[in-house]
Amino acid sequence: SRSYKIAVIPGDGIGKEVMPEGLRALQAASQRFGFQLELEHIEWASCDYYAAHGQMMPDDWKARLSDKDAILFGAVGWPATVPDHVSLWGSLLKFRREFDQYINLRPVRLFEGVPCPLAGRKPGEIDYLVVRENTEGEYTNLGGVMFAGTEREIVIQESVFSRHGTDRVLRYAFERAQSRPRKQLTVATKSNGIAISMPWWDGRADAVGQDFPGVRVDKQHIDILSARFVLQPERFDVVVASNLFGDILSDLGPATTGTIGLAPSANLNPERRFPSLFEPVHGSAPDIYGQNIANPVAMIWSAALMLDFLGERAAHDAMLGAIETVLAQGPRTRDLGGRASTTEMGTAVATLI
Amino acid sequence: SRSYKIAVIPGDGIGKEVMPEGLRALQAASQRFGFQLELEHIEWASCDYYAAHGQMMPDDWKARLSDKDAILFGAVGWPATVPDHVSLWGSLLKFRREFDQYINLRPVRLFEGVPCPLAGRKPGEIDYLVVRENTEGEYTNLGGVMFAGTEREIVIQESVFSRHGTDRVLRYAFERAQSRPRKQLTVATKSNGIAISMPWWDGRADAVGQDFPGVRVDKQHIDILSARFVLQPERFDVVVASNLFGDILSDLGPATTGTIGLAPSANLNPERRFPSLFEPVHGSAPDIYGQNIANPVAMIWSAALMLDFLGERAAHDAMLGAIETVLAQGPRTRDLGGRASTTEMGTAVATLI
Ligand SMILES: CC(C)[C@H](C(=O)O)[C@@H](O)C(=O)O
Ligand SMILES: CC(C)[C@H](C(=O)O)[C@@H](O)C(=O)O
Repeated sequence: SRSYKIAVIPGDGIGKEVMPEGLRALQAASQRFGFQLELEHIEWASCDYYAAHGQMMPDDWKARLSDKDAILFGAVGWPATVPDHVSLWGSLLKFRREFDQYINLRPVRLFEGVPCPLAGRKPGEIDYLVVRENTEGEYTNLGGVMFAGTEREIVIQESVFSRHGTDRVLRYAFERAQSRPRKQLTVATKSNGIAISMPWWDGRADAVGQDFPGVRVDKQHIDILSARFVLQPERFDVVVASNLFGDILSDLGPATTGTIGLAPSANLNPERRFPSLFEPVHGSAPDIYGQNIANPVAMIWSAALMLDFLGERAAHDAMLGAIETVLAQGPRTRDLGGRASTTEMGTAVATLI
Repeated sequence: SRSYKIAVIPGDGIGKEVMPEGLRALQAASQRFGFQLELEHIEWASCDYYAAHGQMMPDDWKARLSDKDAILFGAVGWPATVPDHVSLWGSLLKFRREFDQYINLRPVRLFEGVPCPLAGRKPGEIDYLVVRENTEGEYTNLGGVMFAGTEREIVIQESVFSRHGTDRVLRYAFERAQSRPRKQLTVATKSNGIAISMPWWDGRADAVGQDFPGVRVDKQHIDILSARFVLQPERFDVVVASNLFGDILSDLGPATTGTIGLAPSANLNPERRFPSLFEPVHGSAPDIYGQNIANPVAMIWSAALMLDFLGERAAHDAMLGAIETVLAQGPRTRDLGGRASTTEMGTAVATLI
């Protein structure tokens, strides 16, 4: 029978509270659809681990994970004890880069039962996919400070875009667009202000687009694109963006559907040379940790994206259906105006699967 | 009597349609408040000029403008004939840099009579100021392409932040925050991903903040900050951001108040060594040019910001009051669900002044 090796990393904060609900849903799906999950529970890639060991992960983290089919991740970051850039560059961003998870896929969708912050929008009107480049671009530690500590201080920060890295994310986005009914791709840019990399990025979109004559392409500057996520969300189908722009759009998009507590993400190495990683977008949320009130949907949806990637499409669909039903009918956590605990909402979803 | 020298540059597209309405409002204000405006009408800094001369502005543009008290600007850009990065780097971005207009100030406000895309929000609930750094940061043409045209192509794009440039915009934002009732400053950052410049930027915010113990400071990553512009706009008072982040936030903010057709901006050299520039945020909007349907409010509001900067506070307030009344009572242009022309709406505002 089908069997998958999964590394389970709760991480920090509410990551530890939502992970059990992700696992509960997975277990229900594995029973119903007849596949096995070999779970390995991992305590590292967390700020607790950092407190004890002075680093986020053991030195041999890569070897320990490389036989896994996927990594299910909760959240990382506990700024009260470890600065964010230390915890993130020491774990999540390492995974993304060293496992070459070059696609960060974030579906944005308005559900029934979730109050929409946009006036008069109905489920079905917001339903698009943000495809974010996940390994290079604006996220670098290249550059430096000159005249440090003096009045003349100057800081250079370098962004790095490769044709290799850019073409593959564009190609993936074109493919996704081509497989959807509307076949429409929005390319985020800022070629009018960021004068070297962004005109070049536009050129790569043109070049890769040659192979996809059936896809309608629309380049939009990130400023007006952000505005349109609010004003005309029904216009979007697939949106592809650089690391930074994708980061912004994939928080903004979910916000327009009510809460980033629902938003899942898939960090993919599509060629499966390395394990892919699935995690909620919401982060560790220190402000609500410890109360068992975090919304578990983003975690469960991320687990569903994992099953989809592993080839268990029917299980993915069943999980998403269960999420839809619970969002529409309750029980709901506080962020959605309900009173259910994380456990109650997670159990309700698992029961429906 | 008080007299001001103003350069009037309509630029491209709807810039040419809204400018007359800005001038009409200014004339009404000058009559009522007893100051003079010496207007110089300028055809360059436009793509029409580029078509005839192969450059956006005459070589001596700086000398021709340097005796002006301010520049009133419509919009620039006509991508069908001149690529955006050419038209913008050849005009608007030159003004911002060579006249050291280091503050880009963009008020965000929800008006009565303007349908809000956010559900259940009332005028008064959205009322904040975006202070954007306007001369350096992510907008550069530094960097280059290696292995150009080959599979191995690598592009470096450099951002440049100086202590000089960063501290002054932070200081300006702190001062604005201190003078407002809520005394609250949000600092946009991305120190968890952009690992050199953004942690440094956070450090400068801390350093400059030492002088403003009465201001409450809150650093937020640009991704979640964008989400909160949608989910909790009532939280914001003054928001300070780098060039790129400010660009995004100052389109997104106005979008949440209904239309970027209303949003004004002031490009300020606060020390008045060089003329400051006032322009609508909306741009040249080729898609609606020629129909006289553009909303003139952003232009008129920009002109009001100009008078405020010149010391004519009462005139500014009267213009803003007239805008408020017309937005609440009509006539309204199409973007607001009305049928008025640009001229009709502009005339209505001028009449009330
Ligand atoms: C046109 C463009 C270069 C400009 C910018 O990004 O600064 C515009 O979007 C603005 O916000 O004034
Ligand atoms: C925590 C941070 C480094 C991360 C990112 O910016 O990529 C997060 O915001 C995300 O979107 O996954």
